[in-house]
Amino acid sequence: MSQSTSQSKTVNRRILLASRPHGAPTANNFKIDESPVPTPAAGQVLLRTVYLSLDPYMRGRMSDAPSYAPSVEVGGVMVGGTVSRVVASEHADYKVGDLVLSYSGWQDYELSDGKGLTKLDAKLGKPSYALGVLGMPGFTAYMGLLDIGLPQAGETVVVAAATGAVGSVVGQIAKIKGCRVVGIAGGADKCKYAVEELGFDACVDHRATDFPQQLAAACDKGIDVYFENVGGAVFSAVLPLLNLHARVPVCGLIANYNATDKPQGPDNLPGLMGRLLVRRIKMQGFIIFDYYHRYLEFFNEMSGWFAAGKIKFREDIVDGLENAPQAFIGLLEGKNFGKLVIRAGDE
Amino acid sequence: MSQSTSQSKTVNRRILLASRPHGAPTANNFKIDESPVPTPAAGQVLLRTVYLSLDPYMRGRMSDAPSYAPSVEVGGVMVGGTVSRVVASEHADYKVGDLVLSYSGWQDYELSDGKGLTKLDAKLGKPSYALGVLGMPGFTAYMGLLDIGLPQAGETVVVAAATGAVGSVVGQIAKIKGCRVVGIAGGADKCKYAVEELGFDACVDHRATDFPQQLAAACDKGIDVYFENVGGAVFSAVLPLLNLHARVPVCGLIANYNATDKPQGPDNLPGLMGRLLVRRIKMQGFIIFDYYHRYLEFFNEMSGWFAAGKIKFREDIVDGLENAPQAFIGLLEGKNFGKLVIRAGDE
Repeated sequence: MSQSTSQSKTVNRRILLASRPHGAPTANNFKIDESPVPTPAAGQVLLRTVYLSLDPYMRGRMSDAPSYAPSVEVGGVMVGGTVSRVVASEHADYKVGDLVLSYSGWQDYELSDGKGLTKLDAKLGKPSYALGVLGMPGFTAYMGLLDIGLPQAGETVVVAAATGAVGSVVGQIAKIKGCRVVGIAGGADKCKYAVEELGFDACVDHRATDFPQQLAAACDKGIDVYFENVGGAVFSAVLPLLNLHARVPVCGLIANYNATDKPQGPDNLPGLMGRLLVRRIKMQGFIIFDYYHRYLEFFNEMSGWFAAGKIKFREDIVDGLENAPQAFIGLLEGKNFGKLVIRAGDE
Repeated sequence: MSQSTSQSKTVNRRILLASRPHGAPTANNFKIDESPVPTPAAGQVLLRTVYLSLDPYMRGRMSDAPSYAPSVEVGGVMVGGTVSRVVASEHADYKVGDLVLSYSGWQDYELSDGKGLTKLDAKLGKPSYALGVLGMPGFTAYMGLLDIGLPQAGETVVVAAATGAVGSVVGQIAKIKGCRVVGIAGGADKCKYAVEELGFDACVDHRATDFPQQLAAACDKGIDVYFENVGGAVFSAVLPLLNLHARVPVCGLIANYNATDKPQGPDNLPGLMGRLLVRRIKMQGFIIFDYYHRYLEFFNEMSGWFAAGKIKFREDIVDGLENAPQAFIGLLEGKNFGKLVIRAGDE
């Protein structure tokens, strides 16, 4: 391993939750802490973080509102999936140099007893794909679209955050399944990319003042599957366009994650219920953890598609663990373009 | 057939939509009209209405808001399912005296060419059951609960309008399937009936000031299936109690049917969406028309249960077609107790 300026063999930098955010997180909600790199005891390995995945769900972990997973304690290390390298090993199953998928969080080093580690498959291509197209975001797109959305050839599938880690894969799988795909993204560059690179049939900029009209025009046969990963005003525009027997996998609600007193979005629950009834719509929340038993099915099919060039995947790689807080703040504002990953150490 | 005071062989009374209601319907939204009883031409039958079903969905037909079925025109006859007797026939398939299931609406007589008529099965017991436990309401309960709610033995099933035509059947099927069943109804008499006669495990009065607390106490293991047929404040109390992977068949929203500018109920769509996600809840609207191909499956199983005394069914029979408007207004206010049927003519 080469030594880089951001990489020390003696100091472990950890990014801690300094305080719980009220609304959008700021730099003050994080603090960086330095401690000596620990030494593995018998049965342990020392992991060096190579890539850290930054994902919208982490906003939920910063809050103490009840959710499907425990909050990060104030003063605790921010959680997150990582690709890590074994740099010292007292564990029979791991040797120095092994690359593993871990959940080491926002820090340079972690001691592990091996539980929860997965050695990376050589078929990955780039190790960082284990955090993206062939990891949790790709798996989320795959199961939510196929198991809940049940897209049929010829149907119209709409996905927001269309160039993001999940949305871009949702739309491309829907194209493989013969659907008409309409993306929603923030800004002309992302929309152009969705159509020209990802092969979507159309992409609408949600920042446009006539966004609802543009969306309706792009979905002239209505919407059969709406993959919900943003909520808020985008959902308001989608709701009137949902067809009879439409399916809405509810994967995420990034528009709400920074809400304070009250979540953003349309205040029209009775209106939604009425539409669900009249149009016989299915809405179903899901969390990818529920599908772990189907990971291999996903991995095999997706790696085939990816190798064949049927799925493209863009990464937005930011160098330096110290830049994770600012990159994460930008993620919640839609500033990234592609799957956001921190390169914390050399491959 | 005997002649009763409300029954004429020369005059056809029809109840027309006089004007569209704004909010709750009033007597002024209806008018009664008299015309000569028509004579069947070749290929036609003359039907005399014996029973007229009154159901909440009819409120939707009085409105011109877009829905899954066309509105009644102002000046048109109010629609509705009927049990009718053939009193004159120029149709080879029907003879005088036949009882048929029809959709003749709120009138004494109708000419029919036979399309859409179903001769009543002798297994029915009482002809009016074709409008209730063995007809549309029972079928709605059966498919919504079993096909969307997917109740498992040991789970908690909650149903509102617990003594109504649909709700009472939902709860009893859930009992057959081994579930704990909690009803919601308006008033002590209905709650007592749900527990003592229908065999529900508990029933909570939604008029109680501490209704949400009482519901939570009755559902100490949360709610796995909520059969939604009322909406409004009842749904607000149910939402926080829904368990992981709960299913919510959305069958009707009677609390909203009389709403004017804006439907009643909790203004918290983003909150609902968040809960759907975190708890992985499925909500799905349905309309019984979508299940017509499974009617025989329903009829066979339900008539078996009914004959075996496993399903009880209470009717609230009001005499006289002229009383249909007032009875319907009361239905939307929860004044009926059991399946509301108008006896328009002698059996």
